[in-house]
Amino acid sequence: METLTTTAALRERVRAQRAQGKRIAFVPTMGNLHAGHLQLVRHAKTMAECVVVSIFVNPMQFGPNEDFASYPRTRDADKAVLQDEAADLLFMPDVQEIYAGGDVGRVTRVEVPGFEGDLCGQFRPGFFTGIATVVTGLFNRVQPDCAVFGEKDYQQLVMIKRMVRDLCMPIEVHGVATMREADGLAMSSRNGYLDTAQRARAVRLYQVLCEVKAGLEAGRRYVDVLEQQAMGHLAAAGFNPDYVSIREQDSLKVPNPQATQLIVLAAARLGTTRLIDNVKISIA
Amino acid sequence: METLTTTAALRERVRAQRAQGKRIAFVPTMGNLHAGHLQLVRHAKTMAECVVVSIFVNPMQFGPNEDFASYPRTRDADKAVLQDEAADLLFMPDVQEIYAGGDVGRVTRVEVPGFEGDLCGQFRPGFFTGIATVVTGLFNRVQPDCAVFGEKDYQQLVMIKRMVRDLCMPIEVHGVATMREADGLAMSSRNGYLDTAQRARAVRLYQVLCEVKAGLEAGRRYVDVLEQQAMGHLAAAGFNPDYVSIREQDSLKVPNPQATQLIVLAAARLGTTRLIDNVKISIA
Repeated sequence: METLTTTAALRERVRAQRAQGKRIAFVPTMGNLHAGHLQLVRHAKTMAECVVVSIFVNPMQFGPNEDFASYPRTRDADKAVLQDEAADLLFMPDVQEIYAGGDVGRVTRVEVPGFEGDLCGQFRPGFFTGIATVVTGLFNRVQPDCAVFGEKDYQQLVMIKRMVRDLCMPIEVHGVATMREADGLAMSSRNGYLDTAQRARAVRLYQVLCEVKAGLEAGRRYVDVLEQQAMGHLAAAGFNPDYVSIREQDSLKVPNPQATQLIVLAAARLGTTRLIDNVKISIA
Repeated sequence: METLTTTAALRERVRAQRAQGKRIAFVPTMGNLHAGHLQLVRHAKTMAECVVVSIFVNPMQFGPNEDFASYPRTRDADKAVLQDEAADLLFMPDVQEIYAGGDVGRVTRVEVPGFEGDLCGQFRPGFFTGIATVVTGLFNRVQPDCAVFGEKDYQQLVMIKRMVRDLCMPIEVHGVATMREADGLAMSSRNGYLDTAQRARAVRLYQVLCEVKAGLEAGRRYVDVLEQQAMGHLAAAGFNPDYVSIREQDSLKVPNPQATQLIVLAAARLGTTRLIDNVKISIA
């Protein structure tokens, strides 16, 4: 695996791979890789002969009071596990390489309507525009045939699919199912922020989502009641919940009564750590 | 020359050209082609072995009270002149092909900060975001090596260059000097809206810009005075001027006193027809 820090070097290597007739799959990450990321890399390897992984902690998607500075950066360990997974190219640019002026506030923005202000967008202003913008820039650098994202960041995945469709980017977007710890907690770099007591309680987030799923599957259709109960269960478990929301799976629309493919999404804070998770639901 | 109306057909033809080792140059237009457009095509032919021209009147860049419905559509004549120029591929999609949902207000937007609200952006809200968005979508469909734009739409050209740089689009952007009628009027599809008396007066726009240039070259450095005088001269000639503005040539910033590469840009209405023009200035 070769590590590249400049767009010019990356493009040259990707061009060489493509000249050999290889398809290119791309896995964008913020590093601090865990088994969930490696699952994305494995999926990418089934899609293409050349897998490009990026590690870039994107300042544009962090709010002023969020954890950009403290976000875990573990480059040597990340390199080692990607080497073990036989990723082909690792792109590890610095902020200046991605935002030439260095000024994230003055850069061309890509905005997908309906995401800022909804679900996580309500609690993290600028988050989704920051992601859409950086992913567009990374796509234009790598020029992959397909890109792989985790379903753990489900709203992000739906947004990227919408963006790719709206702007006709020549890229297939794949979602990969969330990897979970033995007790069910969704794998996340931010789990590392939890102390022992918080870690023990954290699994309630997944359990509460599974309870919502069970309620819907049992025929309870009052989504707002289910959502409010779930918020209460999270609060009782020591969470500070941002939202619990039942939506249509593909569009993230508030479900109409006939919808059968649903998803329940939640975000909740344990201390200063914000966790998100989601569970898909298929009702008869 | 082959005419294509779908992205799928376009991509297949472009892929075939590229497989022959040809470079691809792209000229996006709104049709109603005149000698200025043909100059862009000729420039494109010097840059690449395969020239793709698009004709698409983009609803997203027109305001609700602007001339989207009445904008001149002359497809057969356009095809004939492109055939004569030996363009290779003509992409002529309908609105549904570019905006899949058909709803221009709900589509992923590309916005270059500093353009909405400045110069033409002040008078045409949504105009530059509409252009940045459609050009991104066209770039993603054609995937050219280079793209050619006229300097007549100078603010647009600067914005496209900024967007391409910010989002690292793998495309070279070329500007081509404005073509003018015998009397100096910049060629424009909207010149066709002018009646005989208006057409006779229209050349004053270019003349007034040349007078500003002469003033700056003669050492007059009070840009706001020159701008105000030019506004007065336009009004005296029967124009309703939106703005006359002296800027730095590359950045469109308000010039600092040391700047030597300037440009004067103007927009002014004759009746209901809005004309724009610009003249570059190099001072010692």
